Amino acid sequence: MMKTDRIQAFSDGIFSILITILVLEFKLPDGYVQGNLLQAVLQQWPTLVAYVMTFTYIGILWLFHHDMFSCVQRIDARLNILNLSSIFLITLLNYSMSLLAESLVTLNTRDLQFALTFYALLALGISMSYFAFYHYLAHKPSLLASSRYQLQFRRLQRCPLLSSSIYFAALLAANLKVYAGLIFLVAGILFHGF
Amino acid sequence: MMKTDRIQAFSDGIFSILITILVLEFKLPDGYVQGNLLQAVLQQWPTLVAYVMTFTYIGILWLFHHDMFSCVQRIDARLNILNLSSIFLITLLNYSMSLLAESLVTLNTRDLQFALTFYALLALGISMSYFAFYHYLAHKPSLLASSRYQLQFRRLQRCPLLSSSIYFAALLAANLKVYAGLIFLVAGILFHGF
Amino acid sequence: MMKTDRIQAFSDGIFSILITILVLEFKLPDGYVQGNLLQAVLQQWPTLVAYVMTFTYIGILWLFHHDMFSCVQRIDARLNILNLSSIFLITLLNYSMSLLAESLVTLNTRDLQFALTFYALLALGISMSYFAFYHYLAHKPSLLASSRYQLQFRRLQRCPLLSSSIYFAALLAANLKVYAGLIFLVAGILFHGF
Amino acid sequence: MMKTDRIQAFSDGIFSILITILVLEFKLPDGYVQGNLLQAVLQQWPTLVAYVMTFTYIGILWLFHHDMFSCVQRIDARLNILNLSSIFLITLLNYSMSLLAESLVTLNTRDLQFALTFYALLALGISMSYFAFYHYLAHKPSLLASSRYQLQFRRLQRCPLLSSSIYFAALLAANLKVYAGLIFLVAGILFHGF
Repeated sequence: MMKTDRIQAFSDGIFSILITILVLEFKLPDGYVQGNLLQAVLQQWPTLVAYVMTFTYIGILWLFHHDMFSCVQRIDARLNILNLSSIFLITLLNYSMSLLAESLVTLNTRDLQFALTFYALLALGISMSYFAFYHYLAHKPSLLASSRYQLQFRRLQRCPLLSSSIYFAALLAANLKVYAGLIFLVAGILFHGF
Repeated sequence: MMKTDRIQAFSDGIFSILITILVLEFKLPDGYVQGNLLQAVLQQWPTLVAYVMTFTYIGILWLFHHDMFSCVQRIDARLNILNLSSIFLITLLNYSMSLLAESLVTLNTRDLQFALTFYALLALGISMSYFAFYHYLAHKPSLLASSRYQLQFRRLQRCPLLSSSIYFAALLAANLKVYAGLIFLVAGILFHGF
Repeated sequence: MMKTDRIQAFSDGIFSILITILVLEFKLPDGYVQGNLLQAVLQQWPTLVAYVMTFTYIGILWLFHHDMFSCVQRIDARLNILNLSSIFLITLLNYSMSLLAESLVTLNTRDLQFALTFYALLALGISMSYFAFYHYLAHKPSLLASSRYQLQFRRLQRCPLLSSSIYFAALLAANLKVYAGLIFLVAGILFHGF
Repeated sequence: MMKTDRIQAFSDGIFSILITILVLEFKLPDGYVQGNLLQAVLQQWPTLVAYVMTFTYIGILWLFHHDMFSCVQRIDARLNILNLSSIFLITLLNYSMSLLAESLVTLNTRDLQFALTFYALLALGISMSYFAFYHYLAHKPSLLASSRYQLQFRRLQRCPLLSSSIYFAALLAANLKVYAGLIFLVAGILFHGF
């Protein structure tokens, strides 16, 4: 049986590293003409969009992760595996961010559709992992710090299902009307904030 | 309600990662002629200047962050969002550092003006976020560990306003006389130390 | 004499950084034809395979590390050196992962054999370092939090010996029938989970 | 006045990140001929040498840092600045490691002399920063957890002076007989272990 504080420290570490290395995506625009650094940087707006989006998303996921584990007293093997799986998906956000940024540069419709689909699928998977967390904890009161959290988690289960459906909509929308996909994706991320 | 220690651990993590990955900017000079590694490294002095500057700046920001949160007992949603926003701006220092280093290499006046403007704007935004911190905490005594901190934060509010005005001067100066901009920028960073 | 919590924090930090920077291997496929981002990403499946494998492996190694040090009360110089050596080998997993991913792209038999041999040798070394941990702790009851752990570690000694033999089999197999090597390697990693 | 545990956590974070990102120097050998991955990797032995050396060095520096701060009860502004300066120099080891690795590849004598001189100078600076630590703490008993540490630090002062002189010898030796420089450098690092 693992104590909660060490799994939290380990997860916090991963969240803070992940959110920080996102900035490594911002590289000096290569091959810019001297005297035109401003223009070259302005052309990197897609990276900024993808960065703000992903930074916000990871920040929110960390808050949820924190709130959840502050109700947990003990960690069993399954919760550990669940946590590593969830974090595995979250680390991939770094990759999907760069795919999105790249396809916002070329604005190629097919690439943009793919990048949005990839991002939405990943977000869907992450939401499902949080659903699995809440569901598991609602049925394992022995792991909780207080029995009243059981009810809370039963109620919270609905949130990731809702966000999953928004991400599913983003997935469909991206393949019909590409910018609608982006809007749904952003909506899904902002939805977490409420 | 989040406990202070976890938001501190998360923020400390980000500060320490950010300050460490700055060194990744120091890359082996490519395409140097064998036997001239010394000359190639000496030509990287702009990276060293930008590195020392940014390392010092982030180090100081961490100290302020630490001092502030050591007076805070509870974290509410708004403080959390404020913290993530402030940290978001701070992570971008990594990018503005490489822009500055690059333009100190080419010494192109327009690029240098832009890089300094970008850096000064970012610093201005960071100062404003600290102003928002102090202002918010001065009006939310319920979050503070002791009521006497309220007065302290009301007094501290002036500091980020002062540094903001130095950064604003740097911004103007950079576009008139480029090296004056650099001097004001460094002055702004050193000002925090007092 | 070092307190256990600081060596744990330091090691946890390294584990969480290492597991997170693995994702930096996922780079935008360069030179892809616009409109074919999907195909370009699909061709990166080897990186995904190597990534999932290594992420799982490091995750499991962290769990073992955690379980072990939660039984330790005091750290002496030798345990410190043992820990740094073990972590040194573990950091190299990042490199062996990229070698494996690369050789799964080219599918060149000799390169694949080498990449698998390298990975298996590294895994063998890591298993031996855990054997050294258990062995040392089983003979140094004064470092343990409770004397009953001594028996536990004496029993646990067998596990890394077993996994070592699987990795040794992977090493041999890779040089006879390359895919058998991969299967043994994965088997070795999954074996830790039980 | 800062509490010791937060400066330790911040410093530990930096040490663990720094020691982990060293591995990013190990990049897939580019432009290797398919089927010759083994040979290409073997040719990276200089990186391995520089890596083992620097990993060991940072590991030891962390141990010293730990031991020192475990005797410290309170942190004042000067100690904070001293700590940031020391860590600043330590982060540069990442850069000097890659210079050393590169010049061990080309084996150009002048480049090797420069890389060793750079490394030795950096090590000398780091030793001097530890001397400054011990010296300052030996004269500020109010910061110490117990007054008997004062004597200990007065005694410890000699160690960084001794290692400084070894690094100074490395510096001289490198410019006379390049491999003698490397040997002194390694000797200096290993000396810390005793």
